[in-house]
Amino acid sequence: MYAVIMAGGKGTRFWPKSRERMPKHLLDIVSPRTIIQETIERIAPLIPEEHMLIVTGESHADELMKQVPHIPKENVIIEPLGRNTAPCIGLAALHIRRKSPHDVMVVLPADHLIHDAPRFRDLISIAANMAGRGDFLVTIGIRPTGPETGYGYIEKGNLKTAINGEKIYAVKSVREKPPLKQAKAFLKKGGFYWNSGMFVWNVDAILGAIEKWLPGINEGLLQIEDAAGTAGESEAVRRVYETIPSISIDYGVMEKADNTLLIEGDFGWSDMGSWDALWEMSDKDENGNAAMYRDLFLGVDARNSLIHSPRKLVTLLGVEDLIVVDTEDALLICKRGSSQDVKKVVEILEEKKKKEYL
Amino acid sequence: MYAVIMAGGKGTRFWPKSRERMPKHLLDIVSPRTIIQETIERIAPLIPEEHMLIVTGESHADELMKQVPHIPKENVIIEPLGRNTAPCIGLAALHIRRKSPHDVMVVLPADHLIHDAPRFRDLISIAANMAGRGDFLVTIGIRPTGPETGYGYIEKGNLKTAINGEKIYAVKSVREKPPLKQAKAFLKKGGFYWNSGMFVWNVDAILGAIEKWLPGINEGLLQIEDAAGTAGESEAVRRVYETIPSISIDYGVMEKADNTLLIEGDFGWSDMGSWDALWEMSDKDENGNAAMYRDLFLGVDARNSLIHSPRKLVTLLGVEDLIVVDTEDALLICKRGSSQDVKKVVEILEEKKKKEYL
Repeated sequence: MYAVIMAGGKGTRFWPKSRERMPKHLLDIVSPRTIIQETIERIAPLIPEEHMLIVTGESHADELMKQVPHIPKENVIIEPLGRNTAPCIGLAALHIRRKSPHDVMVVLPADHLIHDAPRFRDLISIAANMAGRGDFLVTIGIRPTGPETGYGYIEKGNLKTAINGEKIYAVKSVREKPPLKQAKAFLKKGGFYWNSGMFVWNVDAILGAIEKWLPGINEGLLQIEDAAGTAGESEAVRRVYETIPSISIDYGVMEKADNTLLIEGDFGWSDMGSWDALWEMSDKDENGNAAMYRDLFLGVDARNSLIHSPRKLVTLLGVEDLIVVDTEDALLICKRGSSQDVKKVVEILEEKKKKEYL
Repeated sequence: MYAVIMAGGKGTRFWPKSRERMPKHLLDIVSPRTIIQETIERIAPLIPEEHMLIVTGESHADELMKQVPHIPKENVIIEPLGRNTAPCIGLAALHIRRKSPHDVMVVLPADHLIHDAPRFRDLISIAANMAGRGDFLVTIGIRPTGPETGYGYIEKGNLKTAINGEKIYAVKSVREKPPLKQAKAFLKKGGFYWNSGMFVWNVDAILGAIEKWLPGINEGLLQIEDAAGTAGESEAVRRVYETIPSISIDYGVMEKADNTLLIEGDFGWSDMGSWDALWEMSDKDENGNAAMYRDLFLGVDARNSLIHSPRKLVTLLGVEDLIVVDTEDALLICKRGSSQDVKKVVEILEEKKKKEYL
């Protein structure tokens, strides 16, 4: 079994902590370890490090390898450009097929948070068991807690089977990011799950699906495959990526395929899309303040705030509902509930050509 | 004419910028220059630097001399202990009397702000002219803008005279820091002025008044005078200060003397007692934000806040009425209107023995 960790994110939503060279998965905002370190550690009891592949962008590769020195260097696959998840997953599948042609691969985003790691591993094992049985695309669905429009939705079909008592369902339909009205209708109807972006399948199964549903991407992958192991490989990857379509695996394959299966991922999941989401899921003191570095926080009549400050004493006096993020060169103070607007700050800094803060 | 600049303040109210070793007058929170630098520059057109004496505490003397290198070192008078303003003024008067027995001295707190410096100098000149005419204690009164209980109040008496059209009044009474009810009554009655702590008088006049009204302090000063110019001088000062009464000149002399005169100081005065006061008097942008380092401030939907950050980009997003003060090792975020509670923060840090932040 192989793990493919997709580490292509940008994460402007975590500015000023996230920067162009420091996307979310490389940040220590949830614990003293970085999110990708946690992701790797979570799956490590199931999959040895030699079987972990990480796909990442050129500009983040050095920092990433520094953070995960125990992952063999040749397992870090560098994409010259971001082309969404379908080419990324195809590229990783090629790598695995070369080593182990019929193995199962577990696809995991690098920057998601999971509360119950043992439960997560149990379900991944079940999914891998199922994926190993044939030409299936197993997806992990999350039971929705609200009509979010930022996620894709997977509609549960008939019960396919059960393994160790865990139910595995056929998938009736996959709908990428719906408008609010539709998301509300999904929730009302029931049987819809958020697409977590975590997949388990056989290498053959996914490459077959890409061949069938994404012929343009398949063609590019074949060119890369021809150059594999030669001196021209990275040049071939670059050439192909310059023209390969940018398509998500969800839209390109999962919406179309008829061999997808669903397992409910009831292990406490968050893709943690904003500082607000981090406050929501953080441990808080009796005043509702979440400070990872507690010795560096002093609140006087201060409530319901997030404080991220690894090096400096932060004192809040008579304030509430703030997000405070201190870094070496920039400080963000944001009303809680407004952290999606951090993108606006990044846009303004881009307009002003303040590259040093990007 | 001599200037005596009293630089004995502690200024915990400006934490985290002010520290034990860095009281308010040594801070660059109003302009890129420090408050004492501004104070000296303001009076310099009237009084040469060789005629400026600065009285300060031991622990601040080095930093102070660094900030005002053009003031002769022998003009910096060091008090081994803080004993309020009466001993401080008496000690400075002794220094002046030794050089120039009958000269006028202008007493100025180091940490006050004055908007209209030319007007200030005009009135100081008038006051010095009057003080030079005889045994008068001239005080500069500020027209109250509210029933402040933190200031002393001076009740205007009859018109004594006018110099260059500027009226000089007798003083009917001096009342140190009244309760709110009394302060309100003063305002209602009219003719009351805040005591600015700025005085102009002859050396003979103030030493005579101390001899008359503060015999305990006078006795100490005589012992210091005996040792003046000898190797034992600083030892004598220390010995005297250990037992000399700690009394303000307002309470010890001004409340009792019958030779006090009043000039209204209509030059835009503030003793700037808090971060809130700094916001009040600062230039603001169209959103009411006051940031001295404008290039290091970015507000998005942010209003009516004070930002003091000399080195780091501060971004406010969706917030209002905040005081944000960033220093090397500590950050304060305080609701505007609560900055008097900064003292509480300092007290907590003292209790927790967090000396590094004090």
